[in-house]
Amino acid sequence: MSAHDVVLPLSPVDADFVLADLDPDSTPGMESKKAAEKELAAGRESLDSLQERLFAESRFGGERSVLLVLQAMDTAGKGGIVRHVVGGIDPQGVHIHAFKAPTDEEKEHDFLWRIRKQLPGHGSIGVFDRSHYEDVLIHRVRGFSSPEVIEERYGIINEFEAEVVASGTTIVKVMLHISKEEQKARLEERLDRPDKNWKYNPGDVDERLLWNDYQEAYQIALTRTSTPDAPWFAVPANHKWYARWAVQGLLLDAMTRLDPQWPAADYNVEAEKARLAAS
Amino acid sequence: MSAHDVVLPLSPVDADFVLADLDPDSTPGMESKKAAEKELAAGRESLDSLQERLFAESRFGGERSVLLVLQAMDTAGKGGIVRHVVGGIDPQGVHIHAFKAPTDEEKEHDFLWRIRKQLPGHGSIGVFDRSHYEDVLIHRVRGFSSPEVIEERYGIINEFEAEVVASGTTIVKVMLHISKEEQKARLEERLDRPDKNWKYNPGDVDERLLWNDYQEAYQIALTRTSTPDAPWFAVPANHKWYARWAVQGLLLDAMTRLDPQWPAADYNVEAEKARLAAS
Repeated sequence: MSAHDVVLPLSPVDADFVLADLDPDSTPGMESKKAAEKELAAGRESLDSLQERLFAESRFGGERSVLLVLQAMDTAGKGGIVRHVVGGIDPQGVHIHAFKAPTDEEKEHDFLWRIRKQLPGHGSIGVFDRSHYEDVLIHRVRGFSSPEVIEERYGIINEFEAEVVASGTTIVKVMLHISKEEQKARLEERLDRPDKNWKYNPGDVDERLLWNDYQEAYQIALTRTSTPDAPWFAVPANHKWYARWAVQGLLLDAMTRLDPQWPAADYNVEAEKARLAAS
Repeated sequence: MSAHDVVLPLSPVDADFVLADLDPDSTPGMESKKAAEKELAAGRESLDSLQERLFAESRFGGERSVLLVLQAMDTAGKGGIVRHVVGGIDPQGVHIHAFKAPTDEEKEHDFLWRIRKQLPGHGSIGVFDRSHYEDVLIHRVRGFSSPEVIEERYGIINEFEAEVVASGTTIVKVMLHISKEEQKARLEERLDRPDKNWKYNPGDVDERLLWNDYQEAYQIALTRTSTPDAPWFAVPANHKWYARWAVQGLLLDAMTRLDPQWPAADYNVEAEKARLAAS
């Protein structure tokens, strides 16, 4: 795959973006499930190959990496993205971290403290399953922080991400957008199937009852923190096959723009051949 | 796959084991590359499914996990095992750590300090690419520690691993065994191919010149630390397809013996269905 083959499936969120106007059932840029799955399978190899080059580059001084931030309402399919998109990459080049409710130790620090510790190393692809955005999402909806503190955080996040990008990390932020009806169907399935019961938590319904508040919190967070350096993409996610294809496309685009190359040896190849032959 | 389908491809190392007698070209229990690759593909799904159950179990209080320890001479194929065997498992359930030369901070602590920090969480499969065994391998060969200190470490390792096993972690230790000639061919390939140059390090030949010392260090480490609780398996690895099949078999055997089950809901399913319906 060359740099010219990748076309962004979606536009980044801009100031005029309205989440409520994005149809979770839509599949922009992709006509069918069959075509999406075919491209997903092919893209897996491209992504794996690009990541290997990025990793190789880092072994000879390269300092670049990629960070995929995943945010969504429960059941929107973050886990499926990790399994089906990221799962095609050599696991040695991937660092996945799921941010849960902060521990007591984490609460004693700035909200970005635990985030910084999980940033991907050089040559790696980092994946955040939830992130520092919880501090302006659930914190806003549940009132865990005051409006003044939350107001300040949008700017702090933008500064933080600009710093991360300047240090060599390409940031791709994805919000998986499902409808309230689709969430109900997916939660029902978790209750209906004994092999899915473990994925259900009574707290999921408590959060669901605050659906509109969360949509509003996402609307604000997405528009205030989508920057040219670290754009947000809102991905329609009622069709899992679409969301997986689209997120893979976003990652492929980011990696293709990085265009990592096999590094030149920093040792004398002919001299090493001679040493090896004599060993 | 039922518990009865898994047959260990290899016997664990015992007191009579002689590494020098194990033919790195041999393929015990498997007749052909084609058959091995077919079983590897099928085993991937079984392994992924077993891991998901182990993970589910952990969400409802289960405290079990699996740790795969990989040790080998350079080029023996540790990376290929991670990519082709572990890579078939949902990455959210896997924790891989490559132990490099210890940092200054790590050197200030007991040699197991950095190891303990990377043990897998409940429900996860941990993979150690190199491990605490470096402290009785390269340390022995290079004299980084005194003979007395190294002598003491075999017992310390056995006690440590017994403690880890008692806490719920199944340990599978694998030494990938290649021949000196095969290593030469693989290093030559890294020097011949520009897209493999990054995998070569001049230090690899320095270590290769100490081949016999390393074999002796492995012989001692394997026989002194292969316990019923945490056995070693020496896997012939001149044929990559064989080593991958065999290591997958060892993991499948461990996971099948754990026999994880979907946990029963710890909430009232019918009550939750009613709450969800009303939401």
